[in-house]
Amino acid sequence: MPSTQLIFASREAHRAWLASQAKLPAGFRVATTRFDFTPREAPKPAKMTLTLIALDRPTADFAAVFTKNAFPGAPVIVGRARLAAPRLGAVIVNNKISNVCAPGGVEAAERVCAETARLLGLRPDEILPSSTGVIGWSLPVEPMLAHLPQAAAALGGPSILPAAEGIVTTDLYPKVRRAEVGGGSIVGIAKGAGMIEPNMATMLVYLLTDIAVPRAELRASLTRAVDATFNCISVDSDTSTSDTVALLSSGRVSGVEGPAFEAALTQVCRDLAEDVVRNGEGVRHVIRVEVRNAATPALARALGKAVVNAPLFKCAVAGNDPNVGRLVQAIGKHVGAHETGADLSRLSARMGGIEIFSGGAFRLNPEKENALVAHLKGAELYASAAPKDGVFTAAVDYPPHERCVEIVVDLGTGGAGATVFGADLTHEYVSENADYRS
Amino acid sequence: MPSTQLIFASREAHRAWLASQAKLPAGFRVATTRFDFTPREAPKPAKMTLTLIALDRPTADFAAVFTKNAFPGAPVIVGRARLAAPRLGAVIVNNKISNVCAPGGVEAAERVCAETARLLGLRPDEILPSSTGVIGWSLPVEPMLAHLPQAAAALGGPSILPAAEGIVTTDLYPKVRRAEVGGGSIVGIAKGAGMIEPNMATMLVYLLTDIAVPRAELRASLTRAVDATFNCISVDSDTSTSDTVALLSSGRVSGVEGPAFEAALTQVCRDLAEDVVRNGEGVRHVIRVEVRNAATPALARALGKAVVNAPLFKCAVAGNDPNVGRLVQAIGKHVGAHETGADLSRLSARMGGIEIFSGGAFRLNPEKENALVAHLKGAELYASAAPKDGVFTAAVDYPPHERCVEIVVDLGTGGAGATVFGADLTHEYVSENADYRS
Repeated sequence: MPSTQLIFASREAHRAWLASQAKLPAGFRVATTRFDFTPREAPKPAKMTLTLIALDRPTADFAAVFTKNAFPGAPVIVGRARLAAPRLGAVIVNNKISNVCAPGGVEAAERVCAETARLLGLRPDEILPSSTGVIGWSLPVEPMLAHLPQAAAALGGPSILPAAEGIVTTDLYPKVRRAEVGGGSIVGIAKGAGMIEPNMATMLVYLLTDIAVPRAELRASLTRAVDATFNCISVDSDTSTSDTVALLSSGRVSGVEGPAFEAALTQVCRDLAEDVVRNGEGVRHVIRVEVRNAATPALARALGKAVVNAPLFKCAVAGNDPNVGRLVQAIGKHVGAHETGADLSRLSARMGGIEIFSGGAFRLNPEKENALVAHLKGAELYASAAPKDGVFTAAVDYPPHERCVEIVVDLGTGGAGATVFGADLTHEYVSENADYRS
Repeated sequence: MPSTQLIFASREAHRAWLASQAKLPAGFRVATTRFDFTPREAPKPAKMTLTLIALDRPTADFAAVFTKNAFPGAPVIVGRARLAAPRLGAVIVNNKISNVCAPGGVEAAERVCAETARLLGLRPDEILPSSTGVIGWSLPVEPMLAHLPQAAAALGGPSILPAAEGIVTTDLYPKVRRAEVGGGSIVGIAKGAGMIEPNMATMLVYLLTDIAVPRAELRASLTRAVDATFNCISVDSDTSTSDTVALLSSGRVSGVEGPAFEAALTQVCRDLAEDVVRNGEGVRHVIRVEVRNAATPALARALGKAVVNAPLFKCAVAGNDPNVGRLVQAIGKHVGAHETGADLSRLSARMGGIEIFSGGAFRLNPEKENALVAHLKGAELYASAAPKDGVFTAAVDYPPHERCVEIVVDLGTGGAGATVFGADLTHEYVSENADYRS
């Protein structure tokens, strides 16, 4: 769970808290610009926001991890090449179109980088491009180039909040998390609401720090932090073609020990990862599955993922229905298909602290059923309301609390564990995705 | 696709066609009985139907395949043991409660078998038990025993339709398919609407034949037929703990060649499998994915499954939205996570006969977009309507047509292929499953 359990009584309270977290580390500036354009593949007007994140001086100390999807977007292809570049000076992000498998996509991304570099007095390979939105459409390069000067001219601080707001698509609210360590800070922003079962990283995440960490160490820390956080969440089991987590250091604050830095980095990643789930498309319950005493960490994580990716269990949670049979089905499906040697004979399971399964059988009765319903209702972010014009929409655009549906699965056969975050499957998710582009 | 493309203008037309398919093979009788009871775990009244399928004489020639879920139901545990029994004389099926991981579940199943055997003058191990419904609840043995005599006394023919109607849960309509071969017949019934990604078999399927086939050959044919049919479908990627396909031969018709029998058996299984998808919970579009020219059959099937199990693509299909980016995402996710060596460079994809992807890039334009929308609308079983009291329900309880969303994925790298059937993800699915038990 997050470093602190937060409760927000209103949108304003949440926005005020975000602002309090948003101070940029020394050495960074941000800007955004928004404009109208018409996509080539479907001639209906659309809006795009460009977000620019710039260092005052290019840095050799940067790291990034990308999607493992076998059809990576053009910005991911370019981004992977950037890892070999001597320095990075800025990140340019657009929403609305993800530039994935579009004809000429890499050239389009490089043209945007080249113009950004020219405006900032940098080399083209010092710019990391990112795109998120519809897969398959082409980047509107000319309108983007026309609006870049505006963004470059507006670069400033002291808040990262405009960038956190600029990179979103279907997100209900921006996401900002920070950690302070040894006189420096790590500030992260994330976008990501659907197509979320990151395999390497989640959607788009930018982590800025003024703490000096050499490139090799920075990259090793990021890989470990991402593996323990963003790689343990799933909103809908789909893996985006654009997933990117980038970490940039301006190197202004020296003397922070590696382990202290990595702990702070991992905390920021964990907080953002849970934010991404909580603000997932149509999410009304966050599900936290802690798998204990498994034979291996991989098995622990796989079982946690199996639970949070089981559609029938997700639907039951959406309805505050403690249909725990579907939970055990999900574990049995995974083991039957992929881990036929795994020993489930000592498996026990609890929901909301209540034992539901042990010794090979369910342990259910009407009293427990009532307590489980109460636990599910207590973890609900908002109640589903009758749709307007047939479309279900979220009742809140801020997180009213950070409570989860708490599930513990104990295998009793080893010493490994994992904590996985997932979400329910709701009418709001279907409404959001049955006609996302129209 | 089915052996014939059927169109039904009304519920009555569909029921009349079912009746025309339903003649029992020689040597079989069926009966059902329905009663009220109160489950032990959640004291609200419920209804259960008992379905009895009996041979005139016990047969040595029977076959069955069961779920690979690592938490199989008690009837599956008992059923596996029955495979070693000398003969089978009857199948007793109940709906409403699946008897999975309930304390004393195996003993409960055996008590029901013993009483069924006593009534029919058989040995207890000549009865195959099956249960479907809520996971985790206990079988109401006493009421079941009290109502068994009624079913035994009612055994008769000439139609299998009462059994097809007796075994359903959330199905909208019964499913019956038949094939005639060499003077004999194979008649199958199926139940299955949710928790459908069979791994060995689908929910509950009973195949009756009067064609004489020795046990060993019967079992080999069934395994191959199931692998090519029921193991290639997925409604929601969940794998039931109760999946069972049983095949019984009364041996009345001799002289049918093995290959002819197996071809007919496979056709009945394929038709039923597609029926199960078409009648899947909340299904408004059936999606047919044909994967061609893959390196291996396993890769072909896995890619087909990846497409039909991708929630965002399923939602897009529900909304008649040709968001083909989500289709390619699904293929890329699977290959990136599980088949990193697979060559996707020659991949091309079509939907409704229209090329959407080739040479590493999408091939889209507004005209194609319109044609794809028309294809999706043409494959829609019924339009989603505004919910009554917040609950989306199916507009039809019969299949108006058998058209599918037709997807072809050509890898261009080998000689293997597979055809996989799946479905969209709709508000009707969420409504059905967010509060199934209440």
